[in-house]
Amino acid sequence: MPARVLDGPAVAAAIRAAVAPEVQSFTSAAGRPPALGIVLVGDDPGSEIYVRNKVKAGGESGLTVELLRLPATAAIDEVLTLVRRLNERSDCDGILVQSPLPAGMGRNATQRVFDAIDPAKDVDGFHPVNVGKLAQGRAHLTPCTPSGVMVMLDHFGVRIAGARAVVLGRSDIVGKPMAQLLLSRDATVTICHSKTEALKSVTAEADILVAAIGRAGFVTPEFVKTGATVIDVGINRVTDRSIAAAILGQGSPRLGDFDRRGSLVVGDVHPAVAEVASAMTPVPGGVGPLTIAMLLKNTVSAARARAGV
Amino acid sequence: MPARVLDGPAVAAAIRAAVAPEVQSFTSAAGRPPALGIVLVGDDPGSEIYVRNKVKAGGESGLTVELLRLPATAAIDEVLTLVRRLNERSDCDGILVQSPLPAGMGRNATQRVFDAIDPAKDVDGFHPVNVGKLAQGRAHLTPCTPSGVMVMLDHFGVRIAGARAVVLGRSDIVGKPMAQLLLSRDATVTICHSKTEALKSVTAEADILVAAIGRAGFVTPEFVKTGATVIDVGINRVTDRSIAAAILGQGSPRLGDFDRRGSLVVGDVHPAVAEVASAMTPVPGGVGPLTIAMLLKNTVSAARARAGV
Repeated sequence: MPARVLDGPAVAAAIRAAVAPEVQSFTSAAGRPPALGIVLVGDDPGSEIYVRNKVKAGGESGLTVELLRLPATAAIDEVLTLVRRLNERSDCDGILVQSPLPAGMGRNATQRVFDAIDPAKDVDGFHPVNVGKLAQGRAHLTPCTPSGVMVMLDHFGVRIAGARAVVLGRSDIVGKPMAQLLLSRDATVTICHSKTEALKSVTAEADILVAAIGRAGFVTPEFVKTGATVIDVGINRVTDRSIAAAILGQGSPRLGDFDRRGSLVVGDVHPAVAEVASAMTPVPGGVGPLTIAMLLKNTVSAARARAGV
Repeated sequence: MPARVLDGPAVAAAIRAAVAPEVQSFTSAAGRPPALGIVLVGDDPGSEIYVRNKVKAGGESGLTVELLRLPATAAIDEVLTLVRRLNERSDCDGILVQSPLPAGMGRNATQRVFDAIDPAKDVDGFHPVNVGKLAQGRAHLTPCTPSGVMVMLDHFGVRIAGARAVVLGRSDIVGKPMAQLLLSRDATVTICHSKTEALKSVTAEADILVAAIGRAGFVTPEFVKTGATVIDVGINRVTDRSIAAAILGQGSPRLGDFDRRGSLVVGDVHPAVAEVASAMTPVPGGVGPLTIAMLLKNTVSAARARAGV
């Protein structure tokens, strides 16, 4: 029996439905909607799409979303000045600086900018204070993607406490906070990464396997315990048709999409895992929509906390 | 062949020897030694001993250690005032508030006090900014006990990168930072805790097993893979002679100590593990001395960083 498909848009809709009355009551009480400021530097095509979707989703949920743009040639001080101005504005509840920043800005630019965001407005949860509070089990604003995965697991009734969870990938944005969130809910958590030896045997211990390494179709059935829940956080654009065909199978209707567009997005998990797992998220249509839904939720949480609600 | 005994005092002596020239050069340059302020509230006998040892070790290493005491009846605001005064003093490099604070101070008192410490002087590494930076792989001041374990592993040439490490316990003081430190050195890390199922089979995967749960003699040979390195962070005072005898064996000379003192300190790891492990730390004489050595090291690091060295 193939794995149950964990439907991301349905969970995202449930999150937004839960947020809607909070937006309404905040707006009535404060006389203005919760407000998110997004800083976009440069013109990275991927960032353009992400930011457009965030602006659109915020508007649909009744939030005020203000997009502040800087050219790719901007100095880091201009970004920091923009962030500090948003920190000071009482009518701004959440601040998001879209990463990556232009490479020319220097190696630590992204972290320097994240460090400058008021932790109370840090809707991405990347400020060290918020990272630390997450580790200490008293998080207020937590990174959107792993938080969305937790909501998804709960939505579909996946048992977390006592389960063995393996997180494949240790990024600050997904892997590490994912591990902290699963641990805070009493899973027994293992973090794997590029230096992990006998990787398949480690991931095959997982009742819950979260893949977040950014390698198309990397997680094949040998990595997965029979009956596991597999969460695919990967978003990999494949531009080689033979690779797309190897991952999706020669008969996949999605190859038609490839032929029309010249590329396709696939996850870290190979579709054949559906024969082993009991449940898994598709890509697209899995975790992706949850990230934006959690951004809205975090913005409303930040607004309510700032207003003392 | 019984496990190699990992000698804590030898490693602690090596840490102090490495710190000594740094103390000297700081003292010459700054015109005063690195300075640590210790706040002790109440009269918990365990805390008295810990603090006395910290004051003594600091003095022996050429640091200035100032002990500030408050009665057990002190209000939390008095502690916070004391901490803020130390924050402001330019001649104070490190601040340590001995935990636990008196129970009457309220449930969140300890964290509130830790939160008030200037992160640049937070030699225990418990402030959320320092916890977050540790998670982000850019730690400056890290908790003393797990940092000492890392030094011990390196001292004895234990392979960390690629090894499977299992941390038993998820406290903010030991378990969680231990996991972060091992991960930052490329171990594949699993955190186990009270809700972990089939615990023995999980810990038996470890090449490096760190026990930090505070249960006397809990880790028996079935928990341990043949050839593993076992680090015992437990410090458990046993006051029941039959329990001491069950853990140490009827023939143990340490039972004579029990008879003289009416109690004994034992670790989380059962001595029989020596028949399975390739190396293990004793209790006492293992990890314990490292904690104070790392406190001295952190104080000197904080002093140097504050002075811009």
